[in-house]
Amino acid sequence: MILATLDLLRQSGLSGAGINQVVAASAAPRGSVYHYFPGGKLELTTAALKEAERGVGQRFRDIFHKSTPIATKVASLFAAAGNSLEGNQFTRGCPVAAVTLDIERDSEDLRAVCRGIFDSWQEIIAAGLNGVPRAERRGVARLILATFEGALILSRAEATKEPLLRAGKSLAGVLALRFPTASSPQRAKGGRRRG
Amino acid sequence: MILATLDLLRQSGLSGAGINQVVAASAAPRGSVYHYFPGGKLELTTAALKEAERGVGQRFRDIFHKSTPIATKVASLFAAAGNSLEGNQFTRGCPVAAVTLDIERDSEDLRAVCRGIFDSWQEIIAAGLNGVPRAERRGVARLILATFEGALILSRAEATKEPLLRAGKSLAGVLALRFPTASSPQRAKGGRRRG
Repeated sequence: MILATLDLLRQSGLSGAGINQVVAASAAPRGSVYHYFPGGKLELTTAALKEAERGVGQRFRDIFHKSTPIATKVASLFAAAGNSLEGNQFTRGCPVAAVTLDIERDSEDLRAVCRGIFDSWQEIIAAGLNGVPRAERRGVARLILATFEGALILSRAEATKEPLLRAGKSLAGVLALRFPTASSPQRAKGGRRRG
Repeated sequence: MILATLDLLRQSGLSGAGINQVVAASAAPRGSVYHYFPGGKLELTTAALKEAERGVGQRFRDIFHKSTPIATKVASLFAAAGNSLEGNQFTRGCPVAAVTLDIERDSEDLRAVCRGIFDSWQEIIAAGLNGVPRAERRGVARLILATFEGALILSRAEATKEPLLRAGKSLAGVLALRFPTASSPQRAKGGRRRG
């Protein structure tokens, strides 16, 4: 039921993830939705977003907590998302972005959930930015996440992975220039050549 | 009616901009919606998005077609959006992003509309990037638009303008470093000091 909700949120945000749609997509009896989620749609949406927080967070960790140059990390993230988006015919994007843009007065409680998830993702990315001065890591992580979320939208609108691939490469390029020591961690391992 | 629709789209995407809501918000008689927009919700949404294309496009033009350094342009764009978002209590973002993330099977026609608008905005930005090599302008414009759209989402989720202000400054900084000649157009006007 949670996964069916998450899938619907990724497709079309809050509007597409009503209880009726969740029941239809998950083949769960209607009563069980309210049994497990007495808070109804908001509670079920929150559970689905938390699932995305874990899953996507793990993917950020896999990419950013490696000892690869920052440019490689950024380009990998965008390329992986491009492949995944292509794999679902550009129909499923970031559920947290979709919900954030759909919040209305009666779903205002979801704003804090979305904020918390974006925060935790920024922390995961920041923790993997060795070579970037500690005081700047959070800011760079925010820039990466913002560009990533925006490029996901441009790719969905174009129904091609080009915006993700190209924005990823552009961002990787300017970050490598700005943080050269974050771009070649291997240098420290010795074998550095001199003149 | 078009402006009421646009306002609703900016608030909560397609889900919030049904014919009923538009009628309620615009105080127009229900019959007149179908009179002017026989295509119903999709046609009305398209008209509202086209209105945003013009209005937002003009703001991009005002900022990017000045002879200021690229860093100033980027920081101004993000700061202006932060102020505007703060002015509406973080309830109204980019309608094109909101619609893109809400597209379902029955609103698939809107994808091409959104794509066209993002394209035209990228062209306007690219045309104002003097100092950036011609072949790279479109890519840099895409990076700016992607980061802008993503930062708008982070700011809405946080209900503060910080994500916009900080992502804007970070992006401005790395672009100024990457394109130093785009950062000081005044130099060409003479008075350049030597030694």
